[in-house]
This record gives sequence, structure tokens and C-alpha cells, in this order.
Amino acid sequence: MKKFMNDAQQFVPEMLQGIALANPDTLRYEPRHNLIMRADAPRDDKVSIIQGSGSGHEPAHVMMVGRGMLDGACPGDVFAAPPMDYVYESAKRLASDAGVLLLVNNYTGDRMAFEMAQELAEADGMKVRTLFIDDDVAVQDSTYTVGRRGVAGNFFVMKAVGAASEEGAGLDEAIRIGEKVNAATRSMGIALTPCTPPAKGSPLFELADDEIEVGVGIHGEPGRRRAKLVSADEIVDELLGAVVPDLPYESGDRVALMINGLGGTPISELYVLYGIAHRKLAERGITVGRSYVGEYCTSLEMAGASLTLVRLDDEIERLLEAPAEVAYRVF
Amino acid sequence: MKKFMNDAQQFVPEMLQGIALANPDTLRYEPRHNLIMRADAPRDDKVSIIQGSGSGHEPAHVMMVGRGMLDGACPGDVFAAPPMDYVYESAKRLASDAGVLLLVNNYTGDRMAFEMAQELAEADGMKVRTLFIDDDVAVQDSTYTVGRRGVAGNFFVMKAVGAASEEGAGLDEAIRIGEKVNAATRSMGIALTPCTPPAKGSPLFELADDEIEVGVGIHGEPGRRRAKLVSADEIVDELLGAVVPDLPYESGDRVALMINGLGGTPISELYVLYGIAHRKLAERGITVGRSYVGEYCTSLEMAGASLTLVRLDDEIERLLEAPAEVAYRVF
Repeated sequence: MKKFMNDAQQFVPEMLQGIALANPDTLRYEPRHNLIMRADAPRDDKVSIIQGSGSGHEPAHVMMVGRGMLDGACPGDVFAAPPMDYVYESAKRLASDAGVLLLVNNYTGDRMAFEMAQELAEADGMKVRTLFIDDDVAVQDSTYTVGRRGVAGNFFVMKAVGAASEEGAGLDEAIRIGEKVNAATRSMGIALTPCTPPAKGSPLFELADDEIEVGVGIHGEPGRRRAKLVSADEIVDELLGAVVPDLPYESGDRVALMINGLGGTPISELYVLYGIAHRKLAERGITVGRSYVGEYCTSLEMAGASLTLVRLDDEIERLLEAPAEVAYRVF
Repeated sequence: MKKFMNDAQQFVPEMLQGIALANPDTLRYEPRHNLIMRADAPRDDKVSIIQGSGSGHEPAHVMMVGRGMLDGACPGDVFAAPPMDYVYESAKRLASDAGVLLLVNNYTGDRMAFEMAQELAEADGMKVRTLFIDDDVAVQDSTYTVGRRGVAGNFFVMKAVGAASEEGAGLDEAIRIGEKVNAATRSMGIALTPCTPPAKGSPLFELADDEIEVGVGIHGEPGRRRAKLVSADEIVDELLGAVVPDLPYESGDRVALMINGLGGTPISELYVLYGIAHRKLAERGITVGRSYVGEYCTSLEMAGASLTLVRLDDEIERLLEAPAEVAYRVF
């Protein structure tokens, strides 16, 4: 295992401290519950948006805290759901008269932690609701889920709900928007290599030199099948062949297209995939209205990529366009 | 070799086409010379800023074209300087009454291409100047350079010169600013793994499971020495120990701190390095005024990172803060 780290047990806290040090004016870090939160949150006129999940998926979700996105994120250790009390304490810390919305990628461990935290918070008299994200079309049930997994498409739910809450949307309205975006969003990924969690020290699974995992989960869970490495054209065919008919996305649709890197794949390769997908969608009569190419939801240093489509309408597009500022930025 | 690609010979053109398709309103792609340019360039009241270099360093430089940054980038193939005629034709295409400024990372191949292109352009009566960037403190001369190499610190030169030219700075003023930023900037990198250029199909060098290359170049060139993998704390000590005394950066200085990923390293590890570097600089009395954590200048899928410092003054900080918009973005 070759990583830039000190003690594996301190990997996540050291990362969180780095994020806080790099954003002293906009973010606060509360180490006891792995909480990264906006310095100006909570505001009683704004629904507080919180996302948890395991670490190892950065920039999701701790680097997505900021204006127009999340109010807080309280990750667990690498690939481990946050403990229930992290979520509960984060919800208390970010409690607002307008309510708290918990965004949860659909994994059994995360559901448990967030649902128990919600119950506790409600017993305290807090207004808390939970929204599940399940955009991955690869498999119906999986190693860590009943139902579909939540993967990179969660970015669009965060973005839309974050923008709406910034504009003053109430809790019901934020949930309506989040569910609408989740319902319009489908993803699937392909791994070229496994990844190694710091505390484990060895790869999560093995892939031969000429093999890929089609429909891989973001914790290295198996997908649909092992296959031989094929050309970028064929990989995009496989991804679009799974994602497009699922909603279905149809001729005349306008979509957001995301090519998400899983951590170890250079952005040059992501743009190769993007160009191919853009052209193949055009051949199907589907127009790409918004483009997202880069790392949004990763699996440590796994080489691989996922493709996400969101069917746009005026409301979704306006919310995706709204300004936002997070730790994950270029300038 | 496991990559998302079709034909290795078409890797760069397919990437460039992807960039253009993702940015139809703001960028234009001229395939004959690998040129990605701003859709609104050239403007006769603005110096045109062009950078070339080999591909494989993305987002440098093709994804850094846009408002407040480059007017155009004309990369060569992976790790190969652009042919002289790419630079010459790009300069002609972006010729402006205000002049053209060529930014060149200091590598012998790039220098040759850009210097010859400048001569040809001047023979045509164009106003063209060249600025060399050489921020890497690792080695004095190297495999591909006489003098120091230009690495991730080139981002700050692009940013400052791009902002100044956007504000109407003339060619002399843009050069003054670029040279000032280059003189205030120092970098060094460490590789954990090699990388594999698409056309070569095998790794550029070998590193044992417990080895790192200290002071690595961005084309896999040797640095200062091979060493055993050590903790993140010790790696930051090594990087700061080389970079800080070189300028030197001193107690009381205010700096920009960049932790740049070399392609295969997850951003979580970069934030671990960032946090350590921030604290160790504070111990030396050096204040981090601006933070940059992510991928700025990569070597394909190489795992590794570099550290860059820029000594800030009011002028440099204002230019780094100025708005900019490029293909490399989150939202």
C-alpha cells in the first residue's frame, strides 16, 4: 500500500483538518463528530442540508459543503457509514427552524445510522427529514444495499436541493425537488483497478491485467459482470446501453451528462469518454445541455469511471446553474 | 496498460474533442494544430496568452483556457512538445494588436518549438514574446532541461498573467507580472508510482513497492533520489525542506500553498498533505493566505504529489483572486 498518510486511524481526521485549514473563512470543523460545516450555518430561515456516508469518496461529501450546496457533512471512516451519534449531533448542531434535511446514499449501514439519528432528533422536537438517493442502475440489490445503490448522481441532488434551500425553499419543497432530481438521474460505473482502504492495507478485490468490473460499486462491490478490457467506444456503449433505457432517456430529451472519475483515472481519459458519450447521445436524439467531467464521487485511488445522466427541465436546469461555492474548487 | 481509450494515436485529439463538446459556448477546437481557444479570442485590446507543452499533464494546459486564464493552448502528443507549426499557427490564429505572450515550461523540446515559432511569427510582423517558467527546485539541470524544470507552479503564472491581460495590461506589463510570479514560486514533487504513456504501453520507470522518487519530474524523469516510503509528515518535511530555503520563504511571509496531485492520488491524501504543510509553515512563521488543493499539473495516472509555494504581495494576491472560468470546473 502506497499512500500519503501517517496513522491509518487518523487518515480521515487529518483530511478533515486539512479541509478546515484550507477554508478558514467559510468552513468549521468539529472533530468530535467528523463534522465539516458552513461557518454561517445554521440559519433559521434556511433548511440545513446534511450528508454523511463513508469517507473515501472525496470530494463527496465533505468537500461539497458550502454556499448553495451542503450545510454540513459528517463522514464515517473510509467506506464505513458515520456512527449514528455523528449524524444526530450534526443534526443538532445544524438545527434550524426551517428544518434539517438528511441526504443519504442508499446503503444499509447509512440508512440505519441516519434513520436512528432522525428518530432521536425528532424525539428532541427537531424537524428532520431524510431523502434517499439510488441512481445506480447496475444491480437491483447488492452487497451493501436493499434496492439500488446511490453513487455519483447524488451530486445533482445535493446541487438542486442546496440551491433551492439557499433560495428559501421549505423542507417539503426541498424534498420534492430532491426526489424529482433523484428520479431523473441514472448512473453506472466501470472499474479498471481495485483500491486499498488505509486500515485494510490490501486491495478490496482483484482484477486481472486485462479485466474490468462492469457496474462496480463505489466500495469495490461487484457489479454486473467481469469483462475483458475493451475500447473506450465499447465501454461507453456498455454504459449508455444500461443507463439510457432504464429511465428511459428518449429522443428529444435534454440531459446533464457527467463522466465521473473513480479516483485514479486521469481527467484526459474522462474527456475521451465524455466526447464519445456526447456524440452517441446525439445519435439517439438526446441533447447534452450541461456537462460535468471530473471527480465527483470516488473510491479512493480506484481507476475507473461512471456515467450519469439527468433528464433536465427548466426547474432542474435553473437549480443546477445557480451559484455555489465549496472547498472543491480550482481557483 | 489499462486506460479508457481507443487508438493511442487518437488519444489527444479525442480528449480535445471532448473538451470542445463540453464547452460549446466558450471554447473552439481547431484540430489541425491541437488548438483549444477561447471562442471570444483574439481581441485586439487584449494580449493573447498561449501555452503549449506536451499532453498528459491535464488539466494543464488545455483545460485552463478561458476568461481570466489562457486564450489558447496547443498541446503536443503525450509528453511531447507541440510541433513548432502548432505554436506558430496558434499564435497567428490568436494574433492581437496588443501582442501574443507564449508561456513555456522550461523543457528543451518546448523551448525549441516556441522559440522557432516566435521567430517565424515575428518575421510575419507579429508582436510575440515568450516567458519561461522554471519553478521546480528538485534539480538544476535534468533529463529534458538545461536549468530548472517548469512544473505545477506554472498555474500561478497563467492565473496572474491571465488576470492582468483581462484587465488590459500590455505585453510588457504582462511579462513583468509573469516573471515576478515565477520568481516568487518554488515547487517540488514526489512520486509513489510511475505512469504509462498510451503510445508506449509500459511504465516509464519502475519503483519498488516501498520506494518513492523524491523530486520527480512530470514526465517521470528522475529527481533527487530514490527513498523508502515514509509517513506523510516526513514527506512534507522533505518537500518543505527543499522548497522553503530555496527562495527563501521566511518568517513573516504570506504565501499561496498548493498541493498538486500527479494524477492517481486521491484528493483525500492531498488534503492530508495540505494540513501538515499548513501547520509546519505556521511553525516557521509563514502564513498561508491562499490554498490550492487538487490536480493542476499531472503526469497521467502517476500517484504522487507536489508542493508549491508562492510568496504573495498585494499585487500577486489580487491577480490570483480575480475571477476566472475554465473547462476545469466543478459546477
